[in-house]
Amino acid sequence: MLASVRIVLVNTSHPGNIGGVARAMKNMAISKLVLVDPKEFPSEKATARASGATDILESAEVVSTLEQALEGCQLVVGASARSRHIPWPVVNPREMAQQVAAVQKESDAAVEVALVFGREDRGLTNEELHRCHRHVHIPSNPDFSSLNLAAAVQVICYELRMAALAEDPASELNDVSRWGTAWDIESATSDELERFFEHLEQALIEIDFLDPDNPRQLMTRLRRLYMRSHPDKVEIGILRGILTATQKVQKQGGDHV
Amino acid sequence: MLASVRIVLVNTSHPGNIGGVARAMKNMAISKLVLVDPKEFPSEKATARASGATDILESAEVVSTLEQALEGCQLVVGASARSRHIPWPVVNPREMAQQVAAVQKESDAAVEVALVFGREDRGLTNEELHRCHRHVHIPSNPDFSSLNLAAAVQVICYELRMAALAEDPASELNDVSRWGTAWDIESATSDELERFFEHLEQALIEIDFLDPDNPRQLMTRLRRLYMRSHPDKVEIGILRGILTATQKVQKQGGDHV
Repeated sequence: MLASVRIVLVNTSHPGNIGGVARAMKNMAISKLVLVDPKEFPSEKATARASGATDILESAEVVSTLEQALEGCQLVVGASARSRHIPWPVVNPREMAQQVAAVQKESDAAVEVALVFGREDRGLTNEELHRCHRHVHIPSNPDFSSLNLAAAVQVICYELRMAALAEDPASELNDVSRWGTAWDIESATSDELERFFEHLEQALIEIDFLDPDNPRQLMTRLRRLYMRSHPDKVEIGILRGILTATQKVQKQGGDHV
Repeated sequence: MLASVRIVLVNTSHPGNIGGVARAMKNMAISKLVLVDPKEFPSEKATARASGATDILESAEVVSTLEQALEGCQLVVGASARSRHIPWPVVNPREMAQQVAAVQKESDAAVEVALVFGREDRGLTNEELHRCHRHVHIPSNPDFSSLNLAAAVQVICYELRMAALAEDPASELNDVSRWGTAWDIESATSDELERFFEHLEQALIEIDFLDPDNPRQLMTRLRRLYMRSHPDKVEIGILRGILTATQKVQKQGGDHV
């Protein structure tokens, strides 16, 4: 899905922003950049801000009209501030990404998608926005709504990547582990946990912290604390080691009394 | 919820990035910035990149240790690249925002949350990461994983704002309109649509485009096309005006033959 997405920048003024966009794209594994009549490109400022995403800049296509940039595109989405004279279908970045994923899924061949971003100071013209099937609006602070160009591209590409990863059963988003990352040690089993809680209770009685005749909610609270952290086998081993050491100290103390 | 979030930057090297972070925060209506031992601050470069988010810079707290920055925080989330020697609970930005929203909802008082970001070149140290309840990882391209600092803060703040807006029934995310924005004209009603489709069919017969004895799927296809665009009252008026004009031309042509 990400290979069919092109980022189109219209009349960008600051070459540094083009570099920032290239970096944001590459971070999200999106590589096709089209520049419509940029003020200054190529530029050292672009290369510096790209921080290593120079392949994106080198393969960027420079064209003179939006029409050329959109050639072959089947879904065109324009970045837009909210209020327009004639409202157009507006989606937020998450909805946009879900629609792009849905369109790709429904179609046999890959669907070419363009995300179009306007000038730093005044965005896209109404005429340019009317060439789009949809407008995408980042739900920003109404009192301070204008994002930096590279930041806007970052949010849009992030949502596209999240949608692409959601489709991929092997991706980190669909990792079965509840932590979202592979844990290094196997989880403790239920019976290992129960033996730990028995050991804990016994030790707390021995050190006179728990009164078996008036236990209150102590064990419940401790159980809840430890269960919440979903301990692994090594951790339970460590905790039981501490209990054994505690019991030993208590016994020695008892001997000396 | 956003008022209880603080963004903590540790040992930032480039003041421009501090400005970029301030802008990204203000775009998402997050205002509390804490700087741990920044290389250069205040700085004109920060102010320039903030593009008007100077209030965030002016109210930023500068402290010398992470411990001071985290004072009073009940949930601490550190930004992290993926692989670590000892895995820690890792969430993606969306899960992080959902957890922050859940924690706020479950608690009677506001829960202070810190999002901690490390140095541009090497992130947070292991010791700093171990002060966090959770790590948040932006699922970036494994071959080019390091986001610009302001871009990373933008993604995190965007997800926090999306989660905050989802909780707010009056927010644009919960707009009842299927377009995500208020449409300017009322939708056409079902019966207006039916009268339009009858009119369309009649006109297509009159201009010999539709053969009533062999209609095939023509009306179904046209119906699907127009229904998909969810026409409003004015649009239906325009379409019917076109049909009437077409019928008139056809009749005049017929008269001249």
